Amino acid sequence: MNIQNILVVSPMYKELKLLIEEKAPHKAFQFIPEEELSQDELNWAEALVSFNLKADYDYSTVKWVHSLGAGVDRFLHKKNWNEEVLLTRTICSFGQRIAEYSLSYILGDLQLHDSFQKQQQRKKWEQWTPKLMGDQKVLVYGTGEIGQMIAKVFSSIGVGVFGVSLSGTNKDYFKEVLTLDSHFSRLSEMNYIINTLPLTGKTEKLFNHTIFNQLSNAGFINVGRGASVDEEALLQALAENQVRFAVLDVFAHEPLPENHPFWNNSRVQITPHISAVTTPEEGAACFLETLKNIDENRHLTNKVDTKKGY
Amino acid sequence: MNIQNILVVSPMYKELKLLIEEKAPHKAFQFIPEEELSQDELNWAEALVSFNLKADYDYSTVKWVHSLGAGVDRFLHKKNWNEEVLLTRTICSFGQRIAEYSLSYILGDLQLHDSFQKQQQRKKWEQWTPKLMGDQKVLVYGTGEIGQMIAKVFSSIGVGVFGVSLSGTNKDYFKEVLTLDSHFSRLSEMNYIINTLPLTGKTEKLFNHTIFNQLSNAGFINVGRGASVDEEALLQALAENQVRFAVLDVFAHEPLPENHPFWNNSRVQITPHISAVTTPEEGAACFLETLKNIDENRHLTNKVDTKKGY
Repeated sequence: MNIQNILVVSPMYKELKLLIEEKAPHKAFQFIPEEELSQDELNWAEALVSFNLKADYDYSTVKWVHSLGAGVDRFLHKKNWNEEVLLTRTICSFGQRIAEYSLSYILGDLQLHDSFQKQQQRKKWEQWTPKLMGDQKVLVYGTGEIGQMIAKVFSSIGVGVFGVSLSGTNKDYFKEVLTLDSHFSRLSEMNYIINTLPLTGKTEKLFNHTIFNQLSNAGFINVGRGASVDEEALLQALAENQVRFAVLDVFAHEPLPENHPFWNNSRVQITPHISAVTTPEEGAACFLETLKNIDENRHLTNKVDTKKGY
Repeated sequence: MNIQNILVVSPMYKELKLLIEEKAPHKAFQFIPEEELSQDELNWAEALVSFNLKADYDYSTVKWVHSLGAGVDRFLHKKNWNEEVLLTRTICSFGQRIAEYSLSYILGDLQLHDSFQKQQQRKKWEQWTPKLMGDQKVLVYGTGEIGQMIAKVFSSIGVGVFGVSLSGTNKDYFKEVLTLDSHFSRLSEMNYIINTLPLTGKTEKLFNHTIFNQLSNAGFINVGRGASVDEEALLQALAENQVRFAVLDVFAHEPLPENHPFWNNSRVQITPHISAVTTPEEGAACFLETLKNIDENRHLTNKVDTKKGY
């Protein structure tokens, strides 16, 4: 594929310009913020680099779209994608970032951070014994790029990591990979659940009563997509101790609406979709690597299967 | 050495009795709480298993003392130890425990747990990017059993771990080991400092202005001994941002007195000496292993050099 004219539409267009332009001197670029996008730029562009697509424009001259995020549901979920257009996504350090995010909350829980913070406020000296990572079972939904990095990091410090995928195919660093169809009976033994799945027809509201009812006092971490969770079911599971606490980085509607019950729930920790932020540096590096691979006709590890949706 | 009569003096004497007695059927045991100790039991005992020694008793018939804790300053620091008495200590899972304790606070800091918790209270959705472990430099004082386990765990997730020891001898998992005498010039580049050193004449008030003045906005974690820190100097370093925050598990006086300024300092997180708790199971297992090694005349990996003090 021959790509010459590249349009970068992003709130961080200035940073990206500085990081990208001089590294790809033979290409023509335009860097603009989202609010300045018009049909003129799109008619000029052969490639579009952005977080999402606005529905009211004609993208028909674009041959390649590169997503600045890891999730591509904003391009594909409940949309018609032109199969002739190449879609790639940013992966880079997301796995490591999400692994450290998840690990931080699990360790904070095991090490009783909240309890000791509360004790300190009351000047109380009472000893509780933290639990060890090695005694925990962690179940990761999704055994792709990101799930596998979680398994790698967690297993390196002695945790038994179980995976769930459609196929149940074994992958490195997982103690065992279960299939989505057969994993329900194993849920009660799990201490922590981490969702990394992309949003597709199959994962929409996957985390509903069927799953939560099998859990026993587990920690639930969602770093996949908010729409994969039935929020009513999660609130009920929190009230009934099937879920002991939830750490949520993603939500069906973002930013989370002000009147949402998650905000005031003492067992919910909210983070504003930051577990896998694309920094300008990483976004630029990943885009440039993809551009080079396209120019040299190489295999693209970050190419999206637009039918599967990830 | 032939040991027959073993006296176990501990607040957890009941649990230890259940865990130890039937595993060593050829020995004679007494299990008592500290307040029931009298000279009669000591005259009977050839071995004493305890957290500390009361000064007002005659221990002269005892041939072996096994410390239920990892730190043995309560036996040695500013005391005269009879060199003919064998002193062993509990090590077991302490390294792993202290590594996970330290990691939990560093990850909580990098992942901005406090900021996101405060944002949630105000229903605020503002994105901040967590920092990655791999970009951090961590300096561990002490490259023994515990320091080395920290280096092992931290390096397995991509952190560059530096060590400080008297000799500066290189050890596995450390990127570089500095000597206590020459390490000062390297302090400004460190993001986190972890003290694991035992309390000896050389480490008393080691962390004073000389060290703190070289730090630049670092996190300071003390899992060694409280008396190794000049508390006034630490408070000043916190006020002047040389130390950005401190996580303290050990104190010169424990429990920490109610009127101590650490309690109300928002940059200090206090935990009540729990980073390396001896559970009855671990204490029993470590004692039984040591007993077996003594009976079989094997090398003791947990023997204390009573002159060095660790």
